[in-house]
Amino acid sequence: MNLILLEAGEIDATGAARLTGPRAVHALEVLKVSAGQSLRVGLVEGPRGTATVQTTDRGSVDLICALESSIPERPRVDLLLAVPRPKVMRRLWAQLAALGVGRIVLTNAERVERPYFDTHVLREDCYRPLLIEGLQQAQDTRLSEVSIHRRFKVLVEDDLDALCGPGLRLVADPGGSGSVRAVVRAHAAIDPGCRVLLAVGPEGGWNQFELDLLAAHGFKTTSMGPRTLRTDTACLALLALIHDAMRRD
Amino acid sequence: MNLILLEAGEIDATGAARLTGPRAVHALEVLKVSAGQSLRVGLVEGPRGTATVQTTDRGSVDLICALESSIPERPRVDLLLAVPRPKVMRRLWAQLAALGVGRIVLTNAERVERPYFDTHVLREDCYRPLLIEGLQQAQDTRLSEVSIHRRFKVLVEDDLDALCGPGLRLVADPGGSGSVRAVVRAHAAIDPGCRVLLAVGPEGGWNQFELDLLAAHGFKTTSMGPRTLRTDTACLALLALIHDAMRRD
Repeated sequence: MNLILLEAGEIDATGAARLTGPRAVHALEVLKVSAGQSLRVGLVEGPRGTATVQTTDRGSVDLICALESSIPERPRVDLLLAVPRPKVMRRLWAQLAALGVGRIVLTNAERVERPYFDTHVLREDCYRPLLIEGLQQAQDTRLSEVSIHRRFKVLVEDDLDALCGPGLRLVADPGGSGSVRAVVRAHAAIDPGCRVLLAVGPEGGWNQFELDLLAAHGFKTTSMGPRTLRTDTACLALLALIHDAMRRD
Repeated sequence: MNLILLEAGEIDATGAARLTGPRAVHALEVLKVSAGQSLRVGLVEGPRGTATVQTTDRGSVDLICALESSIPERPRVDLLLAVPRPKVMRRLWAQLAALGVGRIVLTNAERVERPYFDTHVLREDCYRPLLIEGLQQAQDTRLSEVSIHRRFKVLVEDDLDALCGPGLRLVADPGGSGSVRAVVRAHAAIDPGCRVLLAVGPEGGWNQFELDLLAAHGFKTTSMGPRTLRTDTACLALLALIHDAMRRD
């Protein structure tokens, strides 16, 4: 935890907050805090700030928080992901939050197995703590919005515009042309500050119908080169490349 | 498996080979091969090629392989990695092989816990099949060379030059300046075709002595931006950025 996140209800109007549970254990045993020390904190979906430790007790830490006036920008990259195996999805949540994803749109596809939709890994009580873990790692406060869609065609035709708005749409395909960077930079030159929506298919790939539907809805193909990656590795690699290409340097 | 790898001893002078075990199961049940069909194959540390299925039986597939005349280039990126937790290291092997790493140099560091060295995850009989799995995913044949070093100072001062040779050396540091891409491109402009050695520290980071020793041995600091990533996520993200920056486009 490089920053300790507090929920809106955990901090009062004077800035007082009490850590208990795993965050208190982390503060006491890993950071070894004592009264008078300061900690990096943040409010979920709110500002970052600094907290001063008031008192510590067995399993609890009392803080007074001073929050910044501005809220971090929501990551400008969204992800349209064909639901992977539960074990893989479980690992991805925190990694996606750490790399920075504004919205995670999970979808069905021909090569997604139906039981993947019925696991607890797609339930908010499972994924929210994992997203928070990733944010605490990356020192961000902006929680990815998550939605789950069982009908790919309905999602792409009817819902995606409202969910993700305008911006650059990319689909990774080993046969695609144009590096991620080239496509992102070319678009950003015309539309600076645009959002990017990245589509990552299932193991085995999107089928031709799915690729055609994505193309018809503005997704440009892009390639990472000749190596075929597992979807989770591809997701992380592509998000890193897109964020890097979007950085103003 | 996007390519089935064969060991040198598994293919005879006429190109005949027999798949058994998991590779045969994959060919029969996932690829659903039958006599006359062709498969992508490769020889570990050798060429890629195409195999024609001769006969299939319960649990075995007989092939005749036609291999290419040239061997894929060894990935030009090497990794110096402080040994992570066994669970994390276990997951990384295949992902590193899939992204492409010429040599994996595992090292001790102050913040590496000693028991991490004594797990089976660092034994060749554990990691070799995982590296092979990653190569089969990425359609590569070049197996990462692996070495394990318990003394960081001895490694950096005495062994690293012989292990990794000349080239660009990078250490990721949130406080570093210069994007990965900028540093790699600037170096490649002077020394095209150079190798890149990337150092990734333990959770909690390298200590100051370690950073100073790396700097004294030619490692340049580079940054991926303000987000702090877990070392495994950082590893994958940085390898993707380096490979992308090295691509001739």
